[in-house]
Amino acid sequence: MKIDSVDFFYLSMPEVRDVGDGSQDALLVRVRAGDYTGWGECEASPLVSIASWNCPMSHSACKPLSASVLGQRLDEPEDIQRINAMVRANSFDLLQTDHTLSGIDVALWDLLGKKLGEPVYRLLGYQKAYPKIAYASQLFGDDPQSTLHKAQQVARAGFRAAKFGWGPYGRGTVEEDAEQVRAAREGLGPERMLLVDAGTVWGDNVGMGVARLPALHAANALWLEEPFVSGALTAYHQLASKAGRLKLAGGEGCHNFHQAMNMIDYAGLGYVQIDAGRVGGITTAKAIADYAVAKAVQFVNHTFTTPLALSASVQPYAGVEAHDLCEYPAQPSSLARDFCSTGLVPDEQGFIRLPGEPGLGLDPDLNALKKYLVDVEIEVSGRRVFQSVPL
Amino acid sequence: MKIDSVDFFYLSMPEVRDVGDGSQDALLVRVRAGDYTGWGECEASPLVSIASWNCPMSHSACKPLSASVLGQRLDEPEDIQRINAMVRANSFDLLQTDHTLSGIDVALWDLLGKKLGEPVYRLLGYQKAYPKIAYASQLFGDDPQSTLHKAQQVARAGFRAAKFGWGPYGRGTVEEDAEQVRAAREGLGPERMLLVDAGTVWGDNVGMGVARLPALHAANALWLEEPFVSGALTAYHQLASKAGRLKLAGGEGCHNFHQAMNMIDYAGLGYVQIDAGRVGGITTAKAIADYAVAKAVQFVNHTFTTPLALSASVQPYAGVEAHDLCEYPAQPSSLARDFCSTGLVPDEQGFIRLPGEPGLGLDPDLNALKKYLVDVEIEVSGRRVFQSVPL
Repeated sequence: MKIDSVDFFYLSMPEVRDVGDGSQDALLVRVRAGDYTGWGECEASPLVSIASWNCPMSHSACKPLSASVLGQRLDEPEDIQRINAMVRANSFDLLQTDHTLSGIDVALWDLLGKKLGEPVYRLLGYQKAYPKIAYASQLFGDDPQSTLHKAQQVARAGFRAAKFGWGPYGRGTVEEDAEQVRAAREGLGPERMLLVDAGTVWGDNVGMGVARLPALHAANALWLEEPFVSGALTAYHQLASKAGRLKLAGGEGCHNFHQAMNMIDYAGLGYVQIDAGRVGGITTAKAIADYAVAKAVQFVNHTFTTPLALSASVQPYAGVEAHDLCEYPAQPSSLARDFCSTGLVPDEQGFIRLPGEPGLGLDPDLNALKKYLVDVEIEVSGRRVFQSVPL
Repeated sequence: MKIDSVDFFYLSMPEVRDVGDGSQDALLVRVRAGDYTGWGECEASPLVSIASWNCPMSHSACKPLSASVLGQRLDEPEDIQRINAMVRANSFDLLQTDHTLSGIDVALWDLLGKKLGEPVYRLLGYQKAYPKIAYASQLFGDDPQSTLHKAQQVARAGFRAAKFGWGPYGRGTVEEDAEQVRAAREGLGPERMLLVDAGTVWGDNVGMGVARLPALHAANALWLEEPFVSGALTAYHQLASKAGRLKLAGGEGCHNFHQAMNMIDYAGLGYVQIDAGRVGGITTAKAIADYAVAKAVQFVNHTFTTPLALSASVQPYAGVEAHDLCEYPAQPSSLARDFCSTGLVPDEQGFIRLPGEPGLGLDPDLNALKKYLVDVEIEVSGRRVFQSVPL
């Protein structure tokens, strides 16, 4: 087969609010080759990624992604590896490349799985997909009382683990943050795993993180996520050395293999969190999962958007039994809820189980998504370089 | 003053060729505040950076750059620091951000220098700008004979140093690469500094770099640049430990402070190469220069485009006397040659001296640039989010 077409569909909630909820829009990617269609999603600014697909070439290492994808052969996993390498070589001075490549790569794996009649994790070399403990991922409440309620809801819903992040956490006093963490623990009860996400709020200020450790220890939090910006290796390492049994988690900001490798090698992480929709797709995420296993750092997906993105981000470590946690967006937008008719929800024991169907195992619900479609038109020198097509 | 407007001008050669010459297009940025105008340049895909300026918000950390720039106060250097921090916080999930911010930040410094009547390097805290040895930066010839001629031309033109990169280097056999390096040395004569740029061609394959060391040693090359992709810290470090008196150079791919910090701390570099047009602007580049000085790694600009970009990239280390090398694009496109009427060329001794005029000290030649202007129009949901304005 050859890759016949790649189309981008910009989907958005009618109103996007100024909060940390990343499920308010989505960039859906459709790849067609022969008789098959694959779907992927970029966890990225839709308009900017669209612009990178067909922008004019700036020079030999700053080409649009279309130059390395359209018309390429696609018969086996090695073809996807080759396309990845070409995109990275031909577009490495185009910064948005990795985010755009992510959705394309995911769609290529979905398509190839459908053609070969195998779920993606089998194409990646795994015999089976192990169930993952879904942790309910959500924002902190605006105050401790609200966080308490959120935690109680999650507990009642049967989750074994929950993460609270962003919102006011890290922006107020140490005591205010402690109250938030205590409320989350109180709502969850003593048994469930509690994870806390600082959303990079302290930049690279190690002291701000150290000051929050006592409350995190008292609440028996499993991890503190993104105390610092992605890549602040030295700051991460310094905090990790003071954090005792609390582990650091990070890596969602990584957009290529080496950034994740560096976080594993130099940041003192207990958990490396990789979003297949950002890091370059399933191909890159799988390479990172292999490296994490070798270095005894636990791999966890980062997902805050749709079921399609969730399936894509879990495939790369589906067959690693010991890496058993999974981020599950607990309060997605209606766009994310409507995304697939089948969904991908935790079972009664609180586990996520990947579908056994070929590819990613779930397709977008095109009829439901029509109402979220945003029309985009880009002209350069009077030439139309992008025009939305109907879903 | 408040920032009244930011405009982007996409400039391009009529034909962009599939070679490593990054001067074939340019994204010029104009900032206006009060009675002043500042100019900057993004070393980036113009269309993609333009899209990031005014794209719809995806969530609270994925906003268009305009949200953090327009209307902001601009009276002193601290305002530029604050705007930088806001952009990074509000847009950190938008990957293209750092490239777009770069040109805006450069224009802000230019504008503020004009308002305060000082060259930018003075606003950065330097008493004076030291002359820098211009190294003529160009592509390898297609064959050793062509490289020999290029080197002879550079020697005749009075340069004290020259760099050859990209083209066939690293893609053929070890012996073919050795012939290229020998030809470059022969053309330069024994005294001039010879620098070699592999353009990331070996990915992170240390052995490919090690195999080229004997020829580089024999030719008395000062540095080997970008043997590996930016951020491949461990590969860099391994090659550096085997390279003896040959130093490694790298860093042009860095797009924020921490990436450069990691290259300084973990890659074993002798030289860190920073492009103010990519790394986030003069603000970030100055922070990296300070860190490089503290860590005894020599800071060098990366510039392969216009005189405006050259001035912007030299300002951050202008006052560091011992960091005395400067990349000078030796074969720029006519677009880059026409860019400023005054230019910024090496003196008879082969030194680049920054202008003493306020700001960056040179303005684009608007009349000359009109013919390179590329018209862009972007519509989202029928709303025009970008439309080129006349120069």
